[in-house]
Amino acid sequence: MPDATNDPALTSFVDVPDGSHFPIQNIPFGIFRPTSGAAPRVGTAIGDQVLDLSVLEEQRLFEHKTIRERRPFSRPSLNGFMQLGRPVWKAVRERIQHLLRADTPTLRDDNDLRARALHPQSRVEMVLPAEIGDYTDFYSSKEHATNIGTMFRGKENALMPNWTHLPVGYHGRASSVIVSGHDVRRPCGQTKPDDDAPPQYGPSRLLDFELEMGFFVGPGNDLGDPIPIDEAEEHIFGLVLVNDWSARDIQKWEYVPLGPFLGKSFATTISPWIVTLEALAPFRAEGPPQDPEPLPYLGRSGPGAFDIDLEVGLQAEGMDAPQTICRSNFRYLYWTMAQQLAHHTVNGCNVRPGDLMASGTISGPTEDSYGSLLELTWRGTQPIELPGGASRTFIEDGDQVVMTGSAAGDGYRIGFGEARAQVVPAPC
Amino acid sequence: MPDATNDPALTSFVDVPDGSHFPIQNIPFGIFRPTSGAAPRVGTAIGDQVLDLSVLEEQRLFEHKTIRERRPFSRPSLNGFMQLGRPVWKAVRERIQHLLRADTPTLRDDNDLRARALHPQSRVEMVLPAEIGDYTDFYSSKEHATNIGTMFRGKENALMPNWTHLPVGYHGRASSVIVSGHDVRRPCGQTKPDDDAPPQYGPSRLLDFELEMGFFVGPGNDLGDPIPIDEAEEHIFGLVLVNDWSARDIQKWEYVPLGPFLGKSFATTISPWIVTLEALAPFRAEGPPQDPEPLPYLGRSGPGAFDIDLEVGLQAEGMDAPQTICRSNFRYLYWTMAQQLAHHTVNGCNVRPGDLMASGTISGPTEDSYGSLLELTWRGTQPIELPGGASRTFIEDGDQVVMTGSAAGDGYRIGFGEARAQVVPAPC
Repeated sequence: MPDATNDPALTSFVDVPDGSHFPIQNIPFGIFRPTSGAAPRVGTAIGDQVLDLSVLEEQRLFEHKTIRERRPFSRPSLNGFMQLGRPVWKAVRERIQHLLRADTPTLRDDNDLRARALHPQSRVEMVLPAEIGDYTDFYSSKEHATNIGTMFRGKENALMPNWTHLPVGYHGRASSVIVSGHDVRRPCGQTKPDDDAPPQYGPSRLLDFELEMGFFVGPGNDLGDPIPIDEAEEHIFGLVLVNDWSARDIQKWEYVPLGPFLGKSFATTISPWIVTLEALAPFRAEGPPQDPEPLPYLGRSGPGAFDIDLEVGLQAEGMDAPQTICRSNFRYLYWTMAQQLAHHTVNGCNVRPGDLMASGTISGPTEDSYGSLLELTWRGTQPIELPGGASRTFIEDGDQVVMTGSAAGDGYRIGFGEARAQVVPAPC
Repeated sequence: MPDATNDPALTSFVDVPDGSHFPIQNIPFGIFRPTSGAAPRVGTAIGDQVLDLSVLEEQRLFEHKTIRERRPFSRPSLNGFMQLGRPVWKAVRERIQHLLRADTPTLRDDNDLRARALHPQSRVEMVLPAEIGDYTDFYSSKEHATNIGTMFRGKENALMPNWTHLPVGYHGRASSVIVSGHDVRRPCGQTKPDDDAPPQYGPSRLLDFELEMGFFVGPGNDLGDPIPIDEAEEHIFGLVLVNDWSARDIQKWEYVPLGPFLGKSFATTISPWIVTLEALAPFRAEGPPQDPEPLPYLGRSGPGAFDIDLEVGLQAEGMDAPQTICRSNFRYLYWTMAQQLAHHTVNGCNVRPGDLMASGTISGPTEDSYGSLLELTWRGTQPIELPGGASRTFIEDGDQVVMTGSAAGDGYRIGFGEARAQVVPAPC
């Protein structure tokens, strides 16, 4: 039975341009300032507008008891709302859809309220949607892991023996997660470009992006109490696009034996709007077959993948628009989000509302679906041609990387907006 | 010239038993509840007592303008105080020492105030001293890295080529850092004890401790702006003992190629009192010689090590007291805290007040100074004998691990108290 809140016939009194990522079927959540210096608060995107949920909350337009008591929308982060859980998220989503409908007069016919609650997206400042307690990055694309393994260890030993048994992951750096639109400074650090010479200090020369998606944790678990796989999705609030910036030369020298550190921790860019599992429900899909069968604590029940088209655009200085250099899809991932979360907590590790878990680079089966320059240019051996005669093996100063994602429904599109950042020169 | 605030002749009107870790020369900072359910607030330890700094703050006994304005001691974490920086920390420390002196009547002669402000340590509940935004674990003992490398790769390839060039580290899990006294539940997870059989799910069988120390970050840096080595210590608030619990069997199967994850993230125990660099100043020492000379961004100026005796005790069920199984020293570490922090931020990574950075296992040159059971029992081949005929290769359920640390001054001792936890059975 189709979910009424994804009814394609739903229309809003707010204009939603063709192809918009934010029709009334989406209702993502984000944090914004209506004007520079104003207090950050919770909003949703509708068409080209942002709807200020703190205004609706103040007007007592949310009838849900928990929302009336907790007032989660006047806060500078979504953590308070995230911890309330799916029944509250769902009720709020349905209420917002009701208030935005073409046939609901409450907002539509109240000029004053509309002026206070709706702002053009082009005028607001989006900020980080949550206080991220911990950030984890998985490595869940078999194609990506195979590509990297092939480059560094050869085809025979491409996949490590553990890879098909568990979702490999590592702890990332939470402090340097930034929202779309903020510049990324090329990192300085220690590298060893010449095997026979001592290591050097200087700007990274092999700067790369990684196309990922990530989910925010809703309600957490107590330390010592694993989240069973069947309950895992109840702990997932929603998804964003993630650019896991990577300095390949820093990473290569530092990462043995304890994994990625400074090669990653200088910046991670995310898209500002968190798209909920409710909005994505029509796009559930079967992921790749899993062989061998995972251990029971990772056992899947039902389709855990989502059919979300992903693109990476690269815009060098002097170009008018980004050129698409990668087309991938979230459904290519081998391990599901539920499996990632069940695995993450199987040892009793506690997760908290606002924790971010990213997928790892999402590479598909074809060469144009590889999610990093390292793979797209095959370690720099096959440069990408750009309009005007320029070419790229890795990112140069002034380049903008723009990631977008959306799922095509029947007459509408559920989108993520973009995760965009420009690289500025190193300070060294 | 000796620092007046470390004057050995200083005495307090509060009784300080012989050998106490908390004489008037120490003045560590921690968060406690005076009674169960009371609001957490900032305190210092003096002898067997806790002095409630929120009471002194309320009585306006701190003259420093910043303290009067910010009131950092009535809060449930030290983050607010940590961000104020060394001049404020120093002024507060001197003021507390003045108020605690035997010849200062303010507290000494005010029965009512003393009753409100002083509580026996045995009656209060210590809680985590900071909201830890990010937790980083280094790997800075050459002896430890060499021991582990020898076990797994042989003597010839024991140290990885990068190890003597940079302080190797990885991001740890902040959510599962807990304070001394809380039980640690044996983790469940995936292991592969038999190379020729599929992986299994079940309780970890190779549970270990790691003897470490960690420092809390004071003022942070902006994303993109590295902290120069010469300024690094200004960003260090103080130190604690750290037990980096490790499930060796989970770690062994999961850690390639992205490093430690679930083998560590089930728990990290820290001691509750943060000892400041001011208190530790008399114990500065030269660390081991560094060869090759580090790159200039890691260049050392002056002694960056500290002479702090460390011990690990193991108390199995039925034992009356812990048996000491390791005696080590913080000065054995190859990389200094300043070098760790300069390296951590060289790529522009931002650190924030309350971030925790641990040293990695602190092993010394002798066999009884190894900081983990993995090393002490040499991979389980040389069991440790306990009183009553029991022996240990790894930790068993019911065992308590007790880490202590202190530095011996002239007629006094600056100590850290203890980091203690009992292991309880796995839930699987």
